Parts: sequence; C-alpha cells; structure tokens
Amino acid sequence: MTQPIAVLGGTGPEGFGLALRWAQAGETVIIGSRDAQRAQSAADKIKQRVGASAKISGAENVVACGLADLLVLTIPFEGHVALLKQLKPALRPGSIVIDATVPLAASVGGRASRTLGVWQGSAAQETAELVPAGVAVVAAFQNVGAEMLNAEGPVDCDVVVCSDDIEAGRTVRKLAAGVAGVRAIDGGKLENARILEQITALMIGLNIRHKGHSGIRITGLPPAAYVGP
Amino acid sequence: MTQPIAVLGGTGPEGFGLALRWAQAGETVIIGSRDAQRAQSAADKIKQRVGASAKISGAENVVACGLADLLVLTIPFEGHVALLKQLKPALRPGSIVIDATVPLAASVGGRASRTLGVWQGSAAQETAELVPAGVAVVAAFQNVGAEMLNAEGPVDCDVVVCSDDIEAGRTVRKLAAGVAGVRAIDGGKLENARILEQITALMIGLNIRHKGHSGIRITGLPPAAYVGP
Repeated sequence: MTQPIAVLGGTGPEGFGLALRWAQAGETVIIGSRDAQRAQSAADKIKQRVGASAKISGAENVVACGLADLLVLTIPFEGHVALLKQLKPALRPGSIVIDATVPLAASVGGRASRTLGVWQGSAAQETAELVPAGVAVVAAFQNVGAEMLNAEGPVDCDVVVCSDDIEAGRTVRKLAAGVAGVRAIDGGKLENARILEQITALMIGLNIRHKGHSGIRITGLPPAAYVGP
Repeated sequence: MTQPIAVLGGTGPEGFGLALRWAQAGETVIIGSRDAQRAQSAADKIKQRVGASAKISGAENVVACGLADLLVLTIPFEGHVALLKQLKPALRPGSIVIDATVPLAASVGGRASRTLGVWQGSAAQETAELVPAGVAVVAAFQNVGAEMLNAEGPVDCDVVVCSDDIEAGRTVRKLAAGVAGVRAIDGGKLENARILEQITALMIGLNIRHKGHSGIRITGLPPAAYVGP
C-alpha cells in the first residue's frame, strides 16, 4: 500500500495484531483509540517489537480517521454504531471502511460462541448504512484470531473479503495478503459478511472446546482465486 | 463401523459421493431413495467403481431406514420435513440421524449462495424436533462438496460435527474420518449447525465466483482435536 492504514480500536488484541503485522510489512499504520495516550502507548509497543524503522503512530479515533483513507474497524460490537456515528463527519468520499466487527452475543452479556441477529444482515451491512455516500465498505478479517496475529511466524488463516465495491475489495485483498501467511479470497458481495461473522462464533467455540487458536483455510479453488503466498 | 450406514437421498451427488467413500472404506452402505430402482442402480454404479467386494445395496428410503441405525440425510431442503415425517414410524430409539441438509434459498427458487431462515435455528435442529424420543441427531457433512467426494484422491476438507448427544457425536466423527482425507472435529452442540449450514452457502458462492470446488480446513487446534489423518 502507498496509503496509511488507520486501525480504529487498535489497542484491543485484534486491532493491535493487525497493526503489528502491517507495521512488520512496512506499511504506515495509525492506531486509533478513544484515548490518544493508550493509542500512543500501543504504537510504542509495536515500534519496540518491529524496530525503530516501523512507521507506526497513535491517535484518538476521529483524529486517526482524518489521517488515513483506509480505515479498519476492530471494535467490540457494543461500540460499533456509536463509533460510526462519531466518525461520520470525518469520513471522506473515496475512503474505505474495512469492518472486522462480529456481533457476538457477548456484547449483551451472552456467549462469545453465539451471535446476535443484526437487522441489516450483518455488522458490515450496518456499517454500510451508517457511512456517508462515496465511502466504500469492505468486510474482512473477522476470522483471523488475535492470538495468531500477535504470535510469531506466518498466520495460518485465509481472509475472505466481501464488498459491493469491486475496486475497494481488490485493495483490501492486497492489504490482507500483506499479513504474513494470509491468502485473501474474493467472497463476493457485502451481504455475505453475515457468514464470515458467524464463522467467528464457531471458531471461538472451537477454541474454548479444544483449547486452541483456530484459523480457517479455503481449499479447492484455482490458484488465481488466492491473493498472497 | 460395524454397523450399516443408510444414506437417504443417496442417489443425489452428495449422498452418492458419501456412499462411494464409505464403500471404498469397507463399510456396509445402503443407498436410500424414493425410488427403489434408482437406489439399486446407484448402488450398482458404486459396486462397479469400488469392486465386487463392495458392501453396497439400494432400497426405498423407509426400507433403507429399517436396515440401519446410522442414517444420513442428504436431501434437498424442500424434501426435508416430508422425509422426516415419512421416516418417523421407522426410526428406532438408539439410532442416529446424521443431517447434512442445508436450507439453501434455491429450495424456494432463490440462490444457492443464500440460505433461508429456519425457525428452529437450522435444518438439523428442525430434524431434532421431528424425530422420536431416543433418536440422536448429529449435524455433519454440510461442507464437503459432492465434486470432491466423487473425484479420485483424498478429500481436502474437514468435517465439523455438532450434536447434543456426546456418544453419537463421537460415532459420527469416526464415520467422517472414514472418508479419505477428512479430519473430523467436535463442533459442540447441535445449535452450532446453523453456522455449518451457512458456510455451505458461502462455499457455493466461492465455487461459482472462482470456478472451483471449495473445501474448508480448520487450522490451529491441538492434534487431539482432529479425528483422522
């Protein structure tokens, strides 16, 4: 990418792991958080791990949003609508909102291995309803576990990317393939995000049941279907 | 397995492929169909492919049900409730109904890459409501594509098995691991079947989009989580 990537909610383990991986890949990354100081401290940790050449900084979420056209949402579902409403005035046409949010029932005190029904079909489609015109929404990264991202070595997981904007989908597949080990796959329209979100709940259940950190690989597609190693 | 397996709807590509794989593994398999003659003809085809030692036969669905305590449902969703109502008097306590049914929107003229909402949560949970007391229901095999099953060589796909009956789940994981290449994984309670069913719709979409025959592998779990190679 030549563009900076803002990871909003990037002080949480999922966002932190993605920011780490992109910083390792040489991308310019801004960690966003409600608290600018926590964002800066997360950025410092990544700099320590990646090295002084890492292009990483931290900022309050809305400020981070103003600094990048590639925005990744890695926030708990209970903060999803509130953050999008807060970001709305800062979102510029032409920017891409990449939604990794999963509507886990844990958001309302239920289990992390179950999801809530979202009226629009998925958290990502909810996002599509809340962004201004001209902003593309892409669903991705729901199924890459934080533990895999924060561990050493390549990530043993594919990323299925869903969007109604073909060009934005292509950009995000390239971005996903920048995470070592990840292969990105075009999963079609944004409406399919509901399935990606459900898969996360299944994986969380598997992790609890089997005491592991599961990933998912899609087999059987022709090589051209995969972006990445 | 020491018990015969009846594959109901086994003249369709999915059931045929599973019957073929189990016959290859030396299991005793009965193909069930609405039409006994079509069932017999499918069994003959499998015998030709596997060899004269194959323990495979064909029968009308209810007759097939009477011959086995391991029953696999591989039928289109539009025939799901009707078949279960028909089978009910023939289902004996202690038997296991393995449901591979996916409520694709294609059942009502929609797309095969979308699902219908099922009141009980999933086709498999609908089955649980329709079987007599003492019959265990297990959800499995939704994500193993017919093309993979009917091709040569090992199947590049994992089978997640969900059931509220721990013993029945264990039996079905062994059965699944009898399909060359498959690793079976305990996916927890039957309620999780809804996610397995959704995954099939995603995979059908990927197959159409990328012109392939996709499978799914779960990575990152400890070796003990996988039954099979």
